[in-house]
Amino acid sequence: MEEEILKVLKESQNGYVSGEEFSKRLGVTRASIWKHMESLRNIGYDIEAQPHLGYRLVGVPDKLLAHEIMWNLETKIIAKKIYSYETIDSTNDRAYKLAEEGAEEGTVVVAERQSKGKGRMGRRWSSPKGGVYLSLILRPKLMPTEISKLTLVAAVSVAQTIRSATGLQPLIKWPNDILIGRNKLCGILTELKAEQDLTAFVILGIGINVNTRISLLPKNATSISKELGRDYSKIDLTKLLLKNIESHYILFKENKFKAVIDEWRNLSAILGRRVKITDKLRTIEGQAIDIDEGGALVVRLDNGFNERILAGDVILVR
Amino acid sequence: MEEEILKVLKESQNGYVSGEEFSKRLGVTRASIWKHMESLRNIGYDIEAQPHLGYRLVGVPDKLLAHEIMWNLETKIIAKKIYSYETIDSTNDRAYKLAEEGAEEGTVVVAERQSKGKGRMGRRWSSPKGGVYLSLILRPKLMPTEISKLTLVAAVSVAQTIRSATGLQPLIKWPNDILIGRNKLCGILTELKAEQDLTAFVILGIGINVNTRISLLPKNATSISKELGRDYSKIDLTKLLLKNIESHYILFKENKFKAVIDEWRNLSAILGRRVKITDKLRTIEGQAIDIDEGGALVVRLDNGFNERILAGDVILVR
Repeated sequence: MEEEILKVLKESQNGYVSGEEFSKRLGVTRASIWKHMESLRNIGYDIEAQPHLGYRLVGVPDKLLAHEIMWNLETKIIAKKIYSYETIDSTNDRAYKLAEEGAEEGTVVVAERQSKGKGRMGRRWSSPKGGVYLSLILRPKLMPTEISKLTLVAAVSVAQTIRSATGLQPLIKWPNDILIGRNKLCGILTELKAEQDLTAFVILGIGINVNTRISLLPKNATSISKELGRDYSKIDLTKLLLKNIESHYILFKENKFKAVIDEWRNLSAILGRRVKITDKLRTIEGQAIDIDEGGALVVRLDNGFNERILAGDVILVR
Repeated sequence: MEEEILKVLKESQNGYVSGEEFSKRLGVTRASIWKHMESLRNIGYDIEAQPHLGYRLVGVPDKLLAHEIMWNLETKIIAKKIYSYETIDSTNDRAYKLAEEGAEEGTVVVAERQSKGKGRMGRRWSSPKGGVYLSLILRPKLMPTEISKLTLVAAVSVAQTIRSATGLQPLIKWPNDILIGRNKLCGILTELKAEQDLTAFVILGIGINVNTRISLLPKNATSISKELGRDYSKIDLTKLLLKNIESHYILFKENKFKAVIDEWRNLSAILGRRVKITDKLRTIEGQAIDIDEGGALVVRLDNGFNERILAGDVILVR
């Protein structure tokens, strides 16, 4: 009912809708309408009530509410269904469970906070209030060896979203961080369930420091509000992000992944730079020269040979 | 209590244990011992009772009971914990869930039957009574791109187990079938949960047609009992299989995977043969010439180039 009330308020021409009109259109009493207005106010909606005019929506809370994200979203695959939480242990874990229970491609889990936000390799991802924590279920026809392609889809989508929304100039640090300067603005955690030659589903997890207080974040982290000098609407950012992910995911699905790679090259923090890459077995050093069509980083070693790297921790060498 | 009774019976010198001795050693009444004997008989244990001698274990049912598999198993990692079911939907699904709940490496799920046995690529695996349906949780330090190595570990272990137990000469059809002649004796389904550069866990699923009636199986399937002309103990086979998996898994963990590949080469149904391989994107044809250290099949195409294949359906071309 509250969503219907919001819809009527948002679609009103002059802004005002009388209690009488509400009760006629929604088929409930004016007293019931008044109660629903109270609960909307409790969530954070600013609803004005004028004696002769009725109710008017003055302000919407910047909360990742499902119906706010879906409002005029106009996506085809992504976010047909959104699970929204005030606090959750991990949006990735929740999305993984939903996917196992059969949730369809495009299902989104968002939260205002995570109590056990996950980073790569079993690390933690600081998830205080102010950030956007979002996980997305995808069901691509994909070999598990191609998973890094979807990390690139997410990274390009996040970097472009922040650029077009805020004018900031974040870059992608392969494979899964978005930086401003040397400071982390966003992390991506891609997880999957697969057999040897078939992916059952992929969870794209994205954590963005939007209006997060820097004092609540680890060293070397930054936030959009810090860089911008003011808060930015989490809802607007999330909507734009979902649209961008959809358009890049469609490129991927239509075998136009090369277009994603081209964008990635323009957004890369490491191409042309000297890097040191550590994985569980070894550390290599060389110049990051390209990303190939499989999503692997191509590094030119000092012996002149190129090496394809599929994963690892990257350090930029001065 | 029943497991303790079985232990006493199995360890008895002359076979017989009196009711009095039981009640002394286990601290319960003789009436209670008698009741437990009845429930063991109901499971299928053949227990003789002689007036002046006591109880004697004459026969053990050929059921995949946890304590029968664990009896004198002497493994270090594998099967420290076994979940045994009369019927289950899918041992892989059950093991996957247990792994998500934190079950430790080596945990085994076995069943007499599966109601929704899974094959590769969403296919079904016929799982009537008489077969061994077994799934194993592993937690290797592994990139998801290396998953096929563990399929090879399983394939080599199964083929060797059947060879040494029964004298039959099954071969491995890359990547995941064990054949006698052209008929399928065993299938392997490897599943994993992973991030881009870290595997959380792997489920090795193995289905072997042991004493299965051929009429209950699909065309082009065979069973050990069919090939051998008599039944073979599922328990003995399972114990040997678990030991073989452990020894090959240890080779893998100690970076001696090359030894597994060498064994695989000797057991391969396809090396040197002309093959047609189909994956979701294409079909290639050529000669299967080797398996490389990453577990990929190397195929020499007709144009003289070699191609590394990580997955796909293989057809032997005459």
